[in-house]
Amino acid sequence: MSVYLHDIPLSHAQERFRLALLEAGLWRTLGVEEIPLDENALGRVTAEPIWAEVSSPHYHASAMDGFAVRAEDTSEAQPTTPIQLSVVSDQLSIVNLRSRISRYVDTGDPLPEWANAVVPIENTEALDEDGQISPIVRGPSSIRIRASVAPWSHVRPMGEDIVATQLVLPSGHVLRPVDLGAVAASGHHAIRVARKPKIAILPTGTELVPIGSKLKTGDILEYNSLVISAKIEQMGGEPTRYPIIPDDFELICKQVEEAAKTHDLVLLNAGSSAGAEDFSARVVEKLGRLLVHGVAVRPGHPVILGMVKRETQDANRRPDDLMRETWNLTPIIGVPGYPVSAALTVDIFLEPVLARWLGRRPLEMPIEEATLTRKLVSPPGDDDFVRVVLGRVGERLLAAPLSRGAGVITSLVQADGLALVPRGTQGIEAGEKVQVRMYRSRNEIERTILAIGSHDMTLDLIAQFLAEHQRRLASANVGSQGGLIALRRGEAHIAGSHLLDPNDGTYNVSYIRLYMPGIPVKVVALVGRDQGLIVKKENPKGIQNLKDLIRYDVQFVNRQRGAGTRVLLDYHLSLISIPKESIAGYNQEEYTHLGVASAVASGRADCGLGIAAAAQALDLDFIPLFQERYDLVIPKSFAGDVLLSPLFDVLADPRFREAVSHLKGYDVSVMGALILED
Amino acid sequence: MSVYLHDIPLSHAQERFRLALLEAGLWRTLGVEEIPLDENALGRVTAEPIWAEVSSPHYHASAMDGFAVRAEDTSEAQPTTPIQLSVVSDQLSIVNLRSRISRYVDTGDPLPEWANAVVPIENTEALDEDGQISPIVRGPSSIRIRASVAPWSHVRPMGEDIVATQLVLPSGHVLRPVDLGAVAASGHHAIRVARKPKIAILPTGTELVPIGSKLKTGDILEYNSLVISAKIEQMGGEPTRYPIIPDDFELICKQVEEAAKTHDLVLLNAGSSAGAEDFSARVVEKLGRLLVHGVAVRPGHPVILGMVKRETQDANRRPDDLMRETWNLTPIIGVPGYPVSAALTVDIFLEPVLARWLGRRPLEMPIEEATLTRKLVSPPGDDDFVRVVLGRVGERLLAAPLSRGAGVITSLVQADGLALVPRGTQGIEAGEKVQVRMYRSRNEIERTILAIGSHDMTLDLIAQFLAEHQRRLASANVGSQGGLIALRRGEAHIAGSHLLDPNDGTYNVSYIRLYMPGIPVKVVALVGRDQGLIVKKENPKGIQNLKDLIRYDVQFVNRQRGAGTRVLLDYHLSLISIPKESIAGYNQEEYTHLGVASAVASGRADCGLGIAAAAQALDLDFIPLFQERYDLVIPKSFAGDVLLSPLFDVLADPRFREAVSHLKGYDVSVMGALILED
Repeated sequence: MSVYLHDIPLSHAQERFRLALLEAGLWRTLGVEEIPLDENALGRVTAEPIWAEVSSPHYHASAMDGFAVRAEDTSEAQPTTPIQLSVVSDQLSIVNLRSRISRYVDTGDPLPEWANAVVPIENTEALDEDGQISPIVRGPSSIRIRASVAPWSHVRPMGEDIVATQLVLPSGHVLRPVDLGAVAASGHHAIRVARKPKIAILPTGTELVPIGSKLKTGDILEYNSLVISAKIEQMGGEPTRYPIIPDDFELICKQVEEAAKTHDLVLLNAGSSAGAEDFSARVVEKLGRLLVHGVAVRPGHPVILGMVKRETQDANRRPDDLMRETWNLTPIIGVPGYPVSAALTVDIFLEPVLARWLGRRPLEMPIEEATLTRKLVSPPGDDDFVRVVLGRVGERLLAAPLSRGAGVITSLVQADGLALVPRGTQGIEAGEKVQVRMYRSRNEIERTILAIGSHDMTLDLIAQFLAEHQRRLASANVGSQGGLIALRRGEAHIAGSHLLDPNDGTYNVSYIRLYMPGIPVKVVALVGRDQGLIVKKENPKGIQNLKDLIRYDVQFVNRQRGAGTRVLLDYHLSLISIPKESIAGYNQEEYTHLGVASAVASGRADCGLGIAAAAQALDLDFIPLFQERYDLVIPKSFAGDVLLSPLFDVLADPRFREAVSHLKGYDVSVMGALILED
Repeated sequence: MSVYLHDIPLSHAQERFRLALLEAGLWRTLGVEEIPLDENALGRVTAEPIWAEVSSPHYHASAMDGFAVRAEDTSEAQPTTPIQLSVVSDQLSIVNLRSRISRYVDTGDPLPEWANAVVPIENTEALDEDGQISPIVRGPSSIRIRASVAPWSHVRPMGEDIVATQLVLPSGHVLRPVDLGAVAASGHHAIRVARKPKIAILPTGTELVPIGSKLKTGDILEYNSLVISAKIEQMGGEPTRYPIIPDDFELICKQVEEAAKTHDLVLLNAGSSAGAEDFSARVVEKLGRLLVHGVAVRPGHPVILGMVKRETQDANRRPDDLMRETWNLTPIIGVPGYPVSAALTVDIFLEPVLARWLGRRPLEMPIEEATLTRKLVSPPGDDDFVRVVLGRVGERLLAAPLSRGAGVITSLVQADGLALVPRGTQGIEAGEKVQVRMYRSRNEIERTILAIGSHDMTLDLIAQFLAEHQRRLASANVGSQGGLIALRRGEAHIAGSHLLDPNDGTYNVSYIRLYMPGIPVKVVALVGRDQGLIVKKENPKGIQNLKDLIRYDVQFVNRQRGAGTRVLLDYHLSLISIPKESIAGYNQEEYTHLGVASAVASGRADCGLGIAAAAQALDLDFIPLFQERYDLVIPKSFAGDVLLSPLFDVLADPRFREAVSHLKGYDVSVMGALILED
């Protein structure tokens, strides 16, 4: 077992893969198929240029409902001296060129051969046989007009839209709805498109269970294949999801060989690292050639790139695959197991190959320059992709980094973009510029309220209500104190904060003065939030309040130093004069509410202080003890902004208050109260 | 028959439609259905917020392959004074807290209850029973480490990604691949989404024929339903395309009634104007209520909005439609027949309704400000949407208007964006700013070479070859002279030009001096292009050259005054001393090459001067007479730019030369020759 991966730079890995495909005759479009224009042609890629078979229109057509005329007959018409044209029948084609004539035409009707212009019906007066104005527009004996028309006015000349033989679409074009119309208009009812590359997705891992399974400890839900499969569909490929394969070297080899026979590329998900059960590299080595094992990219470095042999000929090969006679290799990508790594690997390594196989341009995200809100440290050898939320605060586009954990798929869900810390840099300082690949349009960013601070689930509800007001709420969780600092730096519009001043029991105001000196703010109460003891289900030890913490049979678990909840605990312990030293487990520290709850759930502790939601999440009991206030802090310079005004509407909306009141452990009586306004 | 439409402002029309839907109880999400996550959930819209059922991870999981330890056991480890930890078995759960222990874990394995950190395998030395370094990593007796680890390092704590009960996705969210992963990770295998609105598309018109039909004069290919259907799919609806209905009032009424019973909305394509066979308004009036007939928007003003009664109950109604008990109306949109109008009507009137029915935000195109390259005149009462191509020339984003004909679907295919001339303005001057809804990303625009001038089909080939070099060619056809003026104004990167100086028989140079004084340019020859006589198939009159034009039995058709081809004709007539007056039809003018060809095809003339392609398009014969040179004119300030350098690569590419040489009527021998370099 080789323990260490040898990470090579991203660009080298991509190039090595490309060259291997080139050598195998696979760096080209895969094949062509003809499909009817009206059967799922949308999104397919033209395999060759489309040339017009017919012109459109294919005759000189009237562009209006009106009367076809010879322009020269109308030259003398004036408002006060109208001219009269006799109306001739549909059948008439050879006419006396001396008389002034006209013929009724609907929009789209062919112009009579003798005509070269159309007078719109609203510019005509219909006359009956006696030369009197007639109410019957269809079939008058003659018409009167009071203005001349230029030759070819209100006519769509033959070929106005498309001239037979002209290029309608180039090859490699991804078909949009209007393209289908243009291709049809040019005389085609079928179109030759690149055939869809067939991609096999093989999830491996004894610990994997299908989505929707009842979970046991150690089980991992297999959803990567779902995400990858949807991505392949979006990219224009045809995915096949295989059932989960347990960690069995021979079994994996067998499945890879099978998949390689009937697919254009195989994705082997997980097992790509260097652990005891990471077989992917050995599988590729056994079945073909390992090109790359490890790429200097984060997340996603344990990538495998290789080519596996097709042992047998594929009897079901399509006619357009005849060139594959010369092929005997199928490319394979070992995709890392963490969901963010997996998604990124597909974007970085599979997408360019699919683009080549389909003959289209690689997908491309818009790139914008943004200011980083906090320092990013990154190994200098890696291309590091960091998920960020974006907002425009004042004149600056700001990028606030989200969780960098490769296992945190919700960070991809929340991300507004992907910031690159390029290879060769150790990191990027807060306030510096960073290149961001945008997941959202600039318009969306322009109506985004950026909230940096302490997170609370009521913010999710605010986001829902703001959506009705054409606003987005993007939030980054850096704690209350970090939020106030972000506001001072002009890096957020609002911050959620719940900082207790142990000197006087007030919330936030003294901290705002400390961290945001000289900056006028508006502070509005959002909710009262219960803090209390998280205890085992049905509270077997009968714990009631903080006094029980000194019981010899009660093991406590604490939050880390500086956490708001720990400040709250210390404050209340001092009020009832309980010395910290008398509490068993006071020095046992957890870093999150959920960490405390899980210490209780696992039996490591009997209780800990936290919020109701954490207890609820792990099906534990909760004894509410105190209420803390969670405020929204808004610099005055933004408080009057049109961007933020819907926020105050939401706080005043009874439906919002109602929705929050249904959450466990929240008090809405303070909602909207003005705490401070400078 | 009411001849005149009463155009109302766009915003009024939209609001009137919205209020009618509101009144009918239809301004809300239509219904909900539960679908498996792994069956076409991509692109569907969440019907309600998704809350997490389970945490992810749902236990403390190792984040690395390595050894689970108690962090406190490692505190004394130093590079020079390693510590040793015994490796315990998988089964062991209660352990002597005094001894230093570890256990092997793969990435994703649950942490033993006693552990709170993981030491990555690459930071360990495996020892055998005798305390010697062992090559077997799995199952050593003990391990040695030379650095301490902090608590919770290399551990993914329970809930790191998702905490049970948290909000995973809001309602009204359009599902992307990563969203499917997050929903699966939070314990769901099915998802409740908005049901797809069912939209009926009824094409009407006796003149319509299905795509792929052999065309007779007056036939119109029915492809609007194809475009509209693809648009509805993209927007998340479920389209039904009905067969073509002839212009028969009763028949249309019957089909609309049928469609209204089983669909959420009916689109009646064409017949929405006020001509003799425009039944749509009468149909809506008969079957329900006509809300709007005519909207002040271009293209697309003859729009009809209305509500039709559902005469009978729908027996096949789904359970989620029970609220429809109270409904008895189906909205109907009369869509204009011109393809550009039809596409725009769907965007403007149907999309907002689909968005509301699906509960998602309306689709939104990014908007950028661009400088207009030529004046746009527009009726002051209308919102006028003008298709433009875009390019960045110097520092400015430029918008060059394309054909404004509502029948020109290729203008939508070529468009990079849609410029709005808003209601209340008479037009916009060249050089002024205009708001453009972008069809392409800013990145694409940044690599666009903007060509304004005379069009030639070799430009289409250049575009194809440039695509391989990551460049786009956007071209707007304003004629040779217009192109030189655009270059002078800094509104294009290159211009195609074929201007003959009749004084000396040279091309372009004297015109460049005249129209671009003082601007250094580089001029490169692109092709020699045949001009010649377009004659009937098999040339029944045996026409050979210009001398035949004075024959009594030959009727000529000319191009308009100022056209390059007419300049060419006059030049050659003067060379052989033929007076214009002696040519029958010299004053019969056409405005395009194809106009000349069609005059010949229809028998109106025996011959005309033009290019080979026009003859080929209408299956006529062509007698090449002269060759004119078609050059590319490039200001020196751009000629050295990295944006344009691939253009010179293409001109030097033998494959390009080969491709052009296969076009009829082109000479590639001059290709790439330097004509002028200041």
